Amino acid sequence: MDAAFVNPFLNALQNVLSMMAQIELKPGKPQIKKDEYARGDVSGIIGMVGPQVKGSFSISFEENLACEIMHKMLGELPDSVDEEVCDMVGEITNMVTGGAKKELAERGFEFDMATPIVVSGRDHTISHRSEGAKLIMPFNHVAGKAYIEICFDKLRA
Amino acid sequence: MDAAFVNPFLNALQNVLSMMAQIELKPGKPQIKKDEYARGDVSGIIGMVGPQVKGSFSISFEENLACEIMHKMLGELPDSVDEEVCDMVGEITNMVTGGAKKELAERGFEFDMATPIVVSGRDHTISHRSEGAKLIMPFNHVAGKAYIEICFDKLRA
Repeated sequence: MDAAFVNPFLNALQNVLSMMAQIELKPGKPQIKKDEYARGDVSGIIGMVGPQVKGSFSISFEENLACEIMHKMLGELPDSVDEEVCDMVGEITNMVTGGAKKELAERGFEFDMATPIVVSGRDHTISHRSEGAKLIMPFNHVAGKAYIEICFDKLRA
Repeated sequence: MDAAFVNPFLNALQNVLSMMAQIELKPGKPQIKKDEYARGDVSGIIGMVGPQVKGSFSISFEENLACEIMHKMLGELPDSVDEEVCDMVGEITNMVTGGAKKELAERGFEFDMATPIVVSGRDHTISHRSEGAKLIMPFNHVAGKAYIEICFDKLRA
């Protein structure tokens, strides 16, 4: 997958967390291998559909990192992934995808976003079912790990 | 949410499982309450975007039911939710949404499907983040439960 498609998502995630929670995520090494899975305790998922492409985006957080983001944002440290943490992950998903959508639209790459879904459950895995390239990008923070996964299928060859 | 939007998904699910696996799911009582969550061990999720609406669809299976569908389809009974079961759930998600899309398009309600995502993890919950109505529909089978959840947001009032 072209880095030009991926970087807007990575930038948007780092910007959103830095602005909202003063949390700086350290990017790890991107993986394009098929045997890698995004993994976490709470994930935000969103579908994307455009004239030439369709795809999906997910962001998964380990519980401690999700709780720490909540702590930094609202001043309260939740014990575990509760309803408020799920709301926050849904919002982050919308903001990251919206930020990337805006940047990509400026380059002539248009898509619309579906409504986000939040998955909660200890150590679940996320697997994007696309024939196109999939990219997983891990992020590290002292409180825990996050993963984003992006895939796009071309509708027309 | 209008039953006219929902029934095509319910019909498509029952048709797909009946045709592919000779499995008859018994529909339970639909819920529109906000405090209900779809829940399962393996889920297929897909985003939908149309000119007037955006939304999401998910189908969640308890492990035993997912394995039994695999058993009926391929003759092999997997021990647990493995890669093949995840593939099958992704396919079911595509087929159900595709069937509903076709039926709804005939009534003038158009949308495109994003690429599906499969979530695997014991007893995870699925929460659709939409301002519009959400419908959860449980299904029963002797091997286990399934849930579908559908939501649509109107883009223009």
